[in-house]
This record gives sequence, C-alpha cells and structure tokens, in this order.
Amino acid sequence: MADLDAVRALTFDVFGTVVDWRQSIIREGEALGRAKSLAVDWARFADAWRGLYQPTMSRVRNGELPWTKLDDLHRMSLDHLLAEFHITGLTETEIDHLNRAWHRLDPWPDAVEGLTRLRRRFILATCSNGNVALIVNMAKRAGLPWDAVLGAETARHYKPQPEAYLTTAEMLGLRPEQCMMVAAHNNDLAAAAGCGLHTAFVPRPTEHGPGQTSDLAPTRAHDVVAKDFVDLAVKLGC
Amino acid sequence: MADLDAVRALTFDVFGTVVDWRQSIIREGEALGRAKSLAVDWARFADAWRGLYQPTMSRVRNGELPWTKLDDLHRMSLDHLLAEFHITGLTETEIDHLNRAWHRLDPWPDAVEGLTRLRRRFILATCSNGNVALIVNMAKRAGLPWDAVLGAETARHYKPQPEAYLTTAEMLGLRPEQCMMVAAHNNDLAAAAGCGLHTAFVPRPTEHGPGQTSDLAPTRAHDVVAKDFVDLAVKLGC
Repeated sequence: MADLDAVRALTFDVFGTVVDWRQSIIREGEALGRAKSLAVDWARFADAWRGLYQPTMSRVRNGELPWTKLDDLHRMSLDHLLAEFHITGLTETEIDHLNRAWHRLDPWPDAVEGLTRLRRRFILATCSNGNVALIVNMAKRAGLPWDAVLGAETARHYKPQPEAYLTTAEMLGLRPEQCMMVAAHNNDLAAAAGCGLHTAFVPRPTEHGPGQTSDLAPTRAHDVVAKDFVDLAVKLGC
Repeated sequence: MADLDAVRALTFDVFGTVVDWRQSIIREGEALGRAKSLAVDWARFADAWRGLYQPTMSRVRNGELPWTKLDDLHRMSLDHLLAEFHITGLTETEIDHLNRAWHRLDPWPDAVEGLTRLRRRFILATCSNGNVALIVNMAKRAGLPWDAVLGAETARHYKPQPEAYLTTAEMLGLRPEQCMMVAAHNNDLAAAAGCGLHTAFVPRPTEHGPGQTSDLAPTRAHDVVAKDFVDLAVKLGC
C-alpha cells in the first residue's frame, strides 16, 4: 500500500456509509405515528423519501433550481409525501421536526470506534451532500469525531459533480491524491476517483433494507475494500 | 442571563482569542533562525507579519484582489518581509514551512479546557479569517474540539464584513441571535453585534506583547465578559 503514503485526509460519504438513514427514519416515523395516531407504513415512507433524494438534487445540478441546501430539498420532498401518504393534522413545528429527522440519524455500530481510530492518523472530513447544520447536528448527537464538515454546501455543488470533491480537497489544503474518499457506493467512489482521489469501499449491505441488491460488492478497483470502519482502520494501519 | 437561553452556538475568533499567534510565530522564527544561522529580531518580524494582515485582507474586501485565502495572503506578506528583513538562503520548502507556522499556533493555556467544557452545551464553530486548512491543522495539533470550521473561506468574505458572520450562522442552521461571537477584539464583536449575534469578550492582554494598549477591556456592552475560556464556561453554566 506504498502508493497510499501520501494520503493525509479521509473524506467520507455520510448517508448510508456512516449512518443508517433507513432504520433511523423508520424509528422517527414510528415515534411520530404513535404520538399522533398515524397509520403509515414507515419503511415505505422512508424509502419514498430517500427515493426523491436524487431527483431533487438533479434539479439543482441541472440549474432548474438555484443552489438549495439539502434541508430544503428534504422539506420539498416531505411536503409532497405528506400528501401522498395522506398524513394530516401535523403542525408546522411537527413537520419541521420530522424534516430534521435527517439530523438525528444513528451511526452504524462500528462507525464511532472506527472513526476514532482513523482520526489518530488522518484528517477526517465529511464530503456529503448533507448541509453543514445537518452534519454538525448529527455528529453532535452521535459522537462522530469530524475534523471538518465539508462537501456540497461548502462547494455549492452536489456530488457526483467534480466540484464537490475537488473543493473539499482544496479547502483541506490538499491535492486530490492526498485524499481518500470513503463510501458504501461505487458510483460516488467512481466520481471521486475521476477527480484523482484515492478510494475506499465499505459495503453497507442493509442500507436499503433486507432486500438490497446494489453496492453489495465493489464493482470497480478501489485502493481499499474494508468490511466496516474498524476493519478500515486496521487496513490503514491505525 | 435569560436572554441568552436562545444561544445554541458559540462562534469563535481564533487568532489572538484562542491561540497566541505572537509567541508562536516568534518560536517558529527562532527555531528557523537557529537552524539557518539567521540574525533576525523575530518579535519584530512577528509583529510586522501580523501588521500586514489587515492591509492584505483589505485588498480582498475592496475588490482589488479576487477571493484569496489567508494562506496565500500570508505568503504574499512573507515574501515581502523576507526581503525587508534581508532573510536569504531559504529553499521554497523552508519558506512554505515558515508560512504554515500559522497552522502551528499554540492555544492560550485555558483554551482546550474551556472549549471542552463549553462543547458539552453549545455547538462550537470557528468564525475566523483563517482558511479551513489552517484552522483544521491548528486544531488537530493543539486539540481544539471544534464542531465546525467556518468563517471567511466558507463565506468568501473577510470579517468584519457582515457576510462572514451571517453565513456562519446560516450554515449552522441558526438565526444570528442563536449565536454568540467570542473574541478578544472589541471591533470584531461590534461587527458581530451589528449582524444580530450575541457577544462575549475575553481579553487577551498579552496578545500583542508586554506593551499592549488595545482591547485590554471592553469598550462596548457585551452580553458576557469573561477573563478566560474556563471563566466563560462557568459564566455560561457549563
């Protein structure tokens, strides 16, 4: 792994890679459902909400919408889904709290331990499409030890646009090859590699639930493939 | 202090407030001077370098220069000072290392303990004119526990321009009155207050050396005046 000696920073995808968005959104939905007596299939709701993630970001990427942070895209999608799922009777405060469920996602069980070990040797930065407040609040609640919260909002470009990766490296004062992108998604890593970053693939085979068919294995050559963040720390000598 | 109940984040000036730039630059200069047999008054050199800080940022603020991060402004000033102080014989690597002395500033003795206590209750963000890499590298070396590294580079405006404070609050997902700016400089706090942020003054009476005459005391009404960061934590109930 001699070619990795230059790596100074690990840049992390967050949704799915660091945190289990699906089970967390289901948990938040079920709590709201109990409190408000709502009969909703929250797994289907979580999948539908995440299903609108790429389409709404695409409207920003293609210029149809001006720069819009993810909290606001999540809210546009949520307003649509509240109608689709016939969820009524929520106050604005309750809807806003539900929208911020994305600030309260739980980490995968290995995440905090793995990051804590990796941080001894590397700068740990997020390179997420989540906006700064979302990632900061998530980190504060979950104990994720980031050195810097960067990515889409600070670059004003959503991944997989190259600016998201390149601006993150540049803000860290590093060349792309001094950074390693860590993600559970082959397409995210392919885009990072196209910008000159090293890549580490960490599969999260239940991110999309028990029937997941995508990203179960690497589909391209990565510098490192690890089974979780603790394994990644071991493989990177931390 | 009931009006401070809304405060969710503390936003920190860094140079002079969190770290002792003057003694640290002197230390770095003296080490270089010993290694390279340079006869330089490093205290005068440190003051001259810092003396070019506001003038170079002004060239960005007034549009004479496009957005330029502080590392690059420091380097412009350093190149000028190397000539003025007749410092010759340094390689590019040595000059770059000296320029990054600003990444290796030492915290005031109370800073890490105070911040660690404050972080239990508040989001801690930098709102510094230092660029992200500078602040991240400094934090990593000194153990400064920031939740977010924000300020001039992420706002692309240097303090005291309002955008630096307002973009920092906005990226934290907060209204200005949910933030409290912490600084050792009355003018920084005046600008923050003008944007609607709360303010905390922490004097650093030796920032400019033994003969300091400015910012020894508050010159305007601040929400909190504390003698150091541990005292600030006590006064904010942490």
